[in-house]
Amino acid sequence: MHSFEELSAAFATRFASRHFPDHPASLYDPAVYFLDLGGKRIRPVLCLMGNELFGPIEDDAWQLAIALELFHNFTLIHDDIMDRAPLRRGMPTVHAKYGSSTAILSGDVMLVVGYDYISRIQSSHIRRILQLYNQTAVKVCEGQQLDMDFEGREQVTLDEYLQMIELKTSVLLAASLQIGSILGGAGLNNQQTIYQFGINLGLAFQIQDDYLDCYGDASKFGKQVGGDIVAGKKTFLLIKTLEVASEAQRREIKALEQASPDEKVAGMLRIYQACGVDSWVRELKEHYRQEAYRSLEDIAVLSKRKEPLQHLVDLLLSRDH
Amino acid sequence: MHSFEELSAAFATRFASRHFPDHPASLYDPAVYFLDLGGKRIRPVLCLMGNELFGPIEDDAWQLAIALELFHNFTLIHDDIMDRAPLRRGMPTVHAKYGSSTAILSGDVMLVVGYDYISRIQSSHIRRILQLYNQTAVKVCEGQQLDMDFEGREQVTLDEYLQMIELKTSVLLAASLQIGSILGGAGLNNQQTIYQFGINLGLAFQIQDDYLDCYGDASKFGKQVGGDIVAGKKTFLLIKTLEVASEAQRREIKALEQASPDEKVAGMLRIYQACGVDSWVRELKEHYRQEAYRSLEDIAVLSKRKEPLQHLVDLLLSRDH
Repeated sequence: MHSFEELSAAFATRFASRHFPDHPASLYDPAVYFLDLGGKRIRPVLCLMGNELFGPIEDDAWQLAIALELFHNFTLIHDDIMDRAPLRRGMPTVHAKYGSSTAILSGDVMLVVGYDYISRIQSSHIRRILQLYNQTAVKVCEGQQLDMDFEGREQVTLDEYLQMIELKTSVLLAASLQIGSILGGAGLNNQQTIYQFGINLGLAFQIQDDYLDCYGDASKFGKQVGGDIVAGKKTFLLIKTLEVASEAQRREIKALEQASPDEKVAGMLRIYQACGVDSWVRELKEHYRQEAYRSLEDIAVLSKRKEPLQHLVDLLLSRDH
Repeated sequence: MHSFEELSAAFATRFASRHFPDHPASLYDPAVYFLDLGGKRIRPVLCLMGNELFGPIEDDAWQLAIALELFHNFTLIHDDIMDRAPLRRGMPTVHAKYGSSTAILSGDVMLVVGYDYISRIQSSHIRRILQLYNQTAVKVCEGQQLDMDFEGREQVTLDEYLQMIELKTSVLLAASLQIGSILGGAGLNNQQTIYQFGINLGLAFQIQDDYLDCYGDASKFGKQVGGDIVAGKKTFLLIKTLEVASEAQRREIKALEQASPDEKVAGMLRIYQACGVDSWVRELKEHYRQEAYRSLEDIAVLSKRKEPLQHLVDLLLSRDH
């Protein structure tokens, strides 16, 4: 059994090889540039861990780990265009550096090359894996579309927001684990349970992300505290607040739209606290963390084998930056 | 054996079923809208014909025919964004009607749903087919990137232009035929020969397309004669002309850049004729048509079986609109 850190290091070495042809450089240089920006490589490692929970890591798991990471990066390149994001990990996004057309096409080709890694696997489960991968990819697109739709809406319910986060973030984590588990020889029940573990992990992670944007340690967080507030982004905190706020608080929120960024952040944090939304969000994250633990317990393998995944939950959900 | 027309009608019936979920409509309505604009459905029918050249049409061939048509439409949606095209088949393009972000995402999801049809096939050759499909998809992206690169360049050689057309247009026709032939049980030699037939057919078709833009019957053509000239698009005619033109003709071409659309078309057509480029392009098309026939002859099956494909060549390459 290997820890997240060990598998992460091993994956980084394999992933450092070149995934694209050289020519035309105008298409592939942007793709290589983006992969070189790095990232935590959580999804490929989840695939490897999902495999190792049930059996020795298969060669196929490494191919699929690469496919999953390429898929994730394809979504980031395209999302950055749609979100008009100038920076990713402190560096210019692909569309900012190379133009939107090339960013569309580099993303497209990255998605296709991901499928090429799938075509290399030897597993007799190739159809099942391809189906799960496709279903997941479709859901991630749906999540991104809902995210964009919500931007233009006055009111979004908590259930709608949870569903969007599940589609945009959780299903890919869950599918990475399940694909690994299929290769490890997991039965259908165990596959479904590890998938549910991934869903809960993803929700808890995103809730934490929204929380840290307001209450994170700015020096460790690497971005300005309250960035979501300034951008007017819908988050777990804002959506819950809009559900429970008094008429007076609603008027204050409306008035803050015209305020300076600093006033807006200070004002919204005051309202969040008055509404008890800060502690509510901590409890919501804790709820999904416990759900994740419960799913992990329900997987029918020796407890000893679950330790790396337990450790991973603690690692991902105990960060304050 | 079935003719192109028969298979085209049969495919249209199958393709008319819904390929996407209902929700979110903001993602899927644009995809359905685009497919409803229609098209000649050449690629899926080539897949069916490639299959039937060697044996009875397999159920898998229908799945792959749908995948290939979805892939083609994905490329059109994304290309229209990059080309800032307002219209496709006389109707607003997806990005013009729904915005670029939704057009990117609708294209993405269409590509993924194409892969979902591949995952449904029963053939033991699924890996080989997936690999060929991926290789082809990568090449089509490369072709589009080269096309964009060429727009910004002063000089493009005929060889470079031919290579771009091969990537952007021919390889998908060729792969559609080859994928069908794999399902029909073709050996490797026959697979390679039918692929080459598709390459030659695609080149002849695109050469004809460039030619008809200048010399087509406007009433049948459905678009203004000389549209490529007005848009300053690089075509077989312009590239060859720039290779053979005299100094005086080059100066005239330069001067025409400032002329009115009508003068520009009239002026360039005069130069094309003076350079003999109109007859040169007709000969070039005839060269690739003959190459296509030769490839077809080289396929080791009974001549009788080749008749539908021979008829298709005549159909595609004898049009004056």
